[in-house]
Amino acid sequence: MATIATKTGQVVERFVLESLLRRRLFYFPSFEVYGGVSGLYDYGPPGCALQANIVDLWRKHFVLEEDMLEVDTTMLTPHEVLKTSGHVDKFADWMCKDPKTGEIFRADHLVEEVLEARLKGDKEARGQKVEVDQEKEAKKKKVKDTKAVKLDDAVVTEYEELLAKIDNYDGDELGQLIVKYDIRNPKTDGNLLPPVPFNLMFQTTIGPSSNTPGYLRPETAQGQFLAFQKLLEFNQQQMPFASAAIGKSFRNEISPRAGLLRVREFLMAEIEHFVDPEGGKKHHRFEEVKNMELSLLDRSIQLSGSTRTEKMTIGKAVSTGLVDNETLGYFLARIQRFLLKLGIDQSKLRFRQHMANEMAHYATDCWDAELQTSYGWIECVGCADRSCGDLTVHRNRTGAPLCVRESRAEPLQIEEWQINLDKKKFGPRFKKDGKTVEAAIDALSQDLREKLALDLEKDGRIEINIEGVSTGKVELEKGLIKIEKRTRVEHTREYTPHVIEPSFGIGRILYSLIEHVYWSRPDDEARGILSFPPAVAPTKVLLVPLSNHESFGPLVQRVMMKLRRAGISNRVDDSSASIGKRYSRNDELGTPFGITVDFQSVKDNTFTLRDRDTTKQVRASEDEILKAIKLLVDGEETWEDVRKRLPEFTGQEVD
Amino acid sequence: MATIATKTGQVVERFVLESLLRRRLFYFPSFEVYGGVSGLYDYGPPGCALQANIVDLWRKHFVLEEDMLEVDTTMLTPHEVLKTSGHVDKFADWMCKDPKTGEIFRADHLVEEVLEARLKGDKEARGQKVEVDQEKEAKKKKVKDTKAVKLDDAVVTEYEELLAKIDNYDGDELGQLIVKYDIRNPKTDGNLLPPVPFNLMFQTTIGPSSNTPGYLRPETAQGQFLAFQKLLEFNQQQMPFASAAIGKSFRNEISPRAGLLRVREFLMAEIEHFVDPEGGKKHHRFEEVKNMELSLLDRSIQLSGSTRTEKMTIGKAVSTGLVDNETLGYFLARIQRFLLKLGIDQSKLRFRQHMANEMAHYATDCWDAELQTSYGWIECVGCADRSCGDLTVHRNRTGAPLCVRESRAEPLQIEEWQINLDKKKFGPRFKKDGKTVEAAIDALSQDLREKLALDLEKDGRIEINIEGVSTGKVELEKGLIKIEKRTRVEHTREYTPHVIEPSFGIGRILYSLIEHVYWSRPDDEARGILSFPPAVAPTKVLLVPLSNHESFGPLVQRVMMKLRRAGISNRVDDSSASIGKRYSRNDELGTPFGITVDFQSVKDNTFTLRDRDTTKQVRASEDEILKAIKLLVDGEETWEDVRKRLPEFTGQEVD
Repeated sequence: MATIATKTGQVVERFVLESLLRRRLFYFPSFEVYGGVSGLYDYGPPGCALQANIVDLWRKHFVLEEDMLEVDTTMLTPHEVLKTSGHVDKFADWMCKDPKTGEIFRADHLVEEVLEARLKGDKEARGQKVEVDQEKEAKKKKVKDTKAVKLDDAVVTEYEELLAKIDNYDGDELGQLIVKYDIRNPKTDGNLLPPVPFNLMFQTTIGPSSNTPGYLRPETAQGQFLAFQKLLEFNQQQMPFASAAIGKSFRNEISPRAGLLRVREFLMAEIEHFVDPEGGKKHHRFEEVKNMELSLLDRSIQLSGSTRTEKMTIGKAVSTGLVDNETLGYFLARIQRFLLKLGIDQSKLRFRQHMANEMAHYATDCWDAELQTSYGWIECVGCADRSCGDLTVHRNRTGAPLCVRESRAEPLQIEEWQINLDKKKFGPRFKKDGKTVEAAIDALSQDLREKLALDLEKDGRIEINIEGVSTGKVELEKGLIKIEKRTRVEHTREYTPHVIEPSFGIGRILYSLIEHVYWSRPDDEARGILSFPPAVAPTKVLLVPLSNHESFGPLVQRVMMKLRRAGISNRVDDSSASIGKRYSRNDELGTPFGITVDFQSVKDNTFTLRDRDTTKQVRASEDEILKAIKLLVDGEETWEDVRKRLPEFTGQEVD
Repeated sequence: MATIATKTGQVVERFVLESLLRRRLFYFPSFEVYGGVSGLYDYGPPGCALQANIVDLWRKHFVLEEDMLEVDTTMLTPHEVLKTSGHVDKFADWMCKDPKTGEIFRADHLVEEVLEARLKGDKEARGQKVEVDQEKEAKKKKVKDTKAVKLDDAVVTEYEELLAKIDNYDGDELGQLIVKYDIRNPKTDGNLLPPVPFNLMFQTTIGPSSNTPGYLRPETAQGQFLAFQKLLEFNQQQMPFASAAIGKSFRNEISPRAGLLRVREFLMAEIEHFVDPEGGKKHHRFEEVKNMELSLLDRSIQLSGSTRTEKMTIGKAVSTGLVDNETLGYFLARIQRFLLKLGIDQSKLRFRQHMANEMAHYATDCWDAELQTSYGWIECVGCADRSCGDLTVHRNRTGAPLCVRESRAEPLQIEEWQINLDKKKFGPRFKKDGKTVEAAIDALSQDLREKLALDLEKDGRIEINIEGVSTGKVELEKGLIKIEKRTRVEHTREYTPHVIEPSFGIGRILYSLIEHVYWSRPDDEARGILSFPPAVAPTKVLLVPLSNHESFGPLVQRVMMKLRRAGISNRVDDSSASIGKRYSRNDELGTPFGITVDFQSVKDNTFTLRDRDTTKQVRASEDEILKAIKLLVDGEETWEDVRKRLPEFTGQEVD
């Protein structure tokens, strides 16, 4: 299942690809000369350029195209904000400690690995074929060996059922499982302490005094919510609108693994689209995307135990109610278009709906864009309708008006029971209790007011329960209080917007993309190729002088300067390796185009232009070649277009 | 002195400018709805776009133009790395605590403020005019009131001398000053505890166990040093080369103030240019910049108590030895060119040389690019020759080969005293001490070897001191040891490169730039204008339909889409405010160009194009207008060029 194939059908051998990525410095473990820190990676020049290009495309595709309000908010976040958002209490994993060795295990992973190892041992003991799930093997670190021990059939069933639900257990339940199934430290067989929650935020102290605890943000979203009011004003009070942020977030994983897919510091790009909850959350550009087809894996199919996706237009998904609303649907379509622009393989993309227990309690609907890699299907973009949950908690906590106030086109007529007190009599009567009594009266519900009005009419007096004032009962007579039904006219409407949140893990997208564009030529399987689209490729053009003959230098310099001026990144390889070798070194870096400078170039100022994917070449004048590159990089022409326009060249590329 | 004027000679009123920046959401205090956290700021849409444009220009000016190797390294940094770099021990300020109130003061600032207040009080008591130093007043927070108390003349002199040297005192000395001059909590008059060092790094714990302490990096530099070996290999072992990094760094200020100029989380862009220390650190492109004139404030002038700058070409500054070497000089010139491109006012830019005690002990020379603002001269870019200090400490600590090994063009002949041991006799003689004895012999200096060779020749035996082996003296006789002068040929050379480090504080540059481009029209002083160059401006074009007449909508949409496709950011203002008002609102945002859509546009598809700085307009066809904007934004034409080419328009802009 986790075997994944390249576009030419070869199996992606992850260790081969990883060795390429390390060798060519796409990324590497941080602080390696100090032994490294797990879950931290640095990007070298090609990885850094790839990341910058993905971010640039994201900004154009979302922020510029949709007129979003981009903000840059701080990573350091005070305790109170994340207490309110729920992260202090709930952003945690369960961990078990071995009291003897001090080792720490993530509880759910440990239970999973130990039981799986026992099932594997059972199969071995029964002489059955053991299928190796490459995906799971890759993630496993703790259980090194399995023992061939046969289990009772009932136990096998029990383990299998339990493993299917492993994500649903809380700490207490995991603790019970550990006791029940006698799960221990796999290395030493030592007993473990019961699971305790481990908060996944990095804690620190802001300023010199220890009374300002803070955290590194776990997401960029909170900063955007807190700025809502300012942004609404900046947008001249117009709704809907979206804010966006690109920045690092942090997650103090218990024991990170799986390379770039689970790291402690990562780049996110998040959008908060604020929308009026009334009127079905329509989107004014939904028409433009409604015929786009998506692979959907909905909740009910997952509940039935299947992972079969269904192809459906987003228009149909919304109209049938599978996707909750147009705005959510619009963003799912836009996310797909973005991923395809990057070079993601559409056959390795699906949208999986969250199960009810995966979402925040206030969320309406949530779909993850998942990308298939050798690690399995990986959540790379989340797209949730978070309703008004976030703005509401911050508003309740701070009293800040994180809401929209707008004039009603038609004033609203509201019939209601209103209460008037005769302040002259009221003050002297209740003295210091005045405010408490008044507040209690203000808080009376409409139903109760109606009943009290009748009582007052009938008896001339009413009795109200008010805790802490005299006997707990307060008597009020006609003249002191008046309760009448009146009509109130409301000219403004106040509401808390709902939020649709597309949230992108840039590092995960970057890694998955690399797997999707990776392949090798049938005649040279040892040498990898990364077929990034030109807009995304770290470097666009490689300049290759045929040899180190002195006449080539000035031409290389001139072409380089012209490319640079046009904003097209390029590198020169004037090493002594053969042309073919220099090109294939750059295929590994994903450089889409190569220009060769040869003796003919010196004579007539023509150059050859080579395409990475086909290895075909054309030859034309300097101006023609530069123009073609510009059109290719801007996505206005394809290589096929260029090849038809310009004469083919068949000399030179010899290894 | 801290009065600063706009380009039209008006005084920059900081509170007016700050109110504009807050109102138009350039930046604002983070977490304001929670009461804010000092030293943390968020960027709103215009600030965020401005920052992105500065970073983009930086990347083009440095990384692309100089083929630098950009990396993205993590902010989380383990303890050991920053222990080695010296930050754990030395990256600290001194703070005093008031044991009664718990208040914390930065010791040097407190001494400074209290003594300055006393000097001011003395002047008042003497009836002298008190000059208010706006710059210092702005920074002061602790001392609210001064008392008119006359001081002895000797005391005045003493205070003045002390204040001139305030940056040079360490914690003990500050503690002595606090006792000697009876400096207390200005608010409560309470006594303070002696100063203790406060490390300015944010501390945290990486992973679930408390034995991996870490910090948020105080600079991006360390990550680049640690990657040196990998980058050298990526660069095919070619020297010199530069790495570059753009990212957030952190500094846990004791009590931050002065807005964006002293914050706890900030964006940096740093270059580490690695160069061979032999041959005078020449730079192959120095010729291109040598005639550029810089305003220099050198060390000797500062020592004489003056701040008079001298204009000098960088060629002369290097040839006279004022700037240590060509590479350092080259970067100073490139920094100046970058700042001017951004729109920095050259008359408010100077390069100040560090005093010997300001630099790290291993640094050779250091110059700061300082920008003049209403807060005074602010260090915005540092440019230091750090010699081989950083690579050496990490190499010594880890043993990693953070150095260059290259073949020598001419093999080096080295005459030296070599020692040979007869291993057959040596092993049995020293048994378990063998290795210790051998190591001690290996470590003998050339001088000592020469002397021992003579002794051995003369006496047939020698005696060597070796701690821990037998009596501490070891006797060796001819036959067991041989010491001879021989010639060794060295084919490779190994050296630790020196590092030139230009280091940019993006937030400080951004704020200073805003002050430099801020002005207002003589006829409308209340309304500010931010004259960013087009490449840097947050939004390039404002689209203004004359009214909300339905015929304008499609035209606005079409022009908007065309601009977007050309990558030119734009916003539509279709509010009901007058054209003039809408334009002046956008002058505040620094939008350089405006397109008006009017009834004439509907008829003949012509539009007016307005220039922010002159408020002049031209009118031409859609294609002509779009082409002009593209040329203006790319910096290929100025407004003067466009105005000469296209017919002027004089209607419409009426308030």
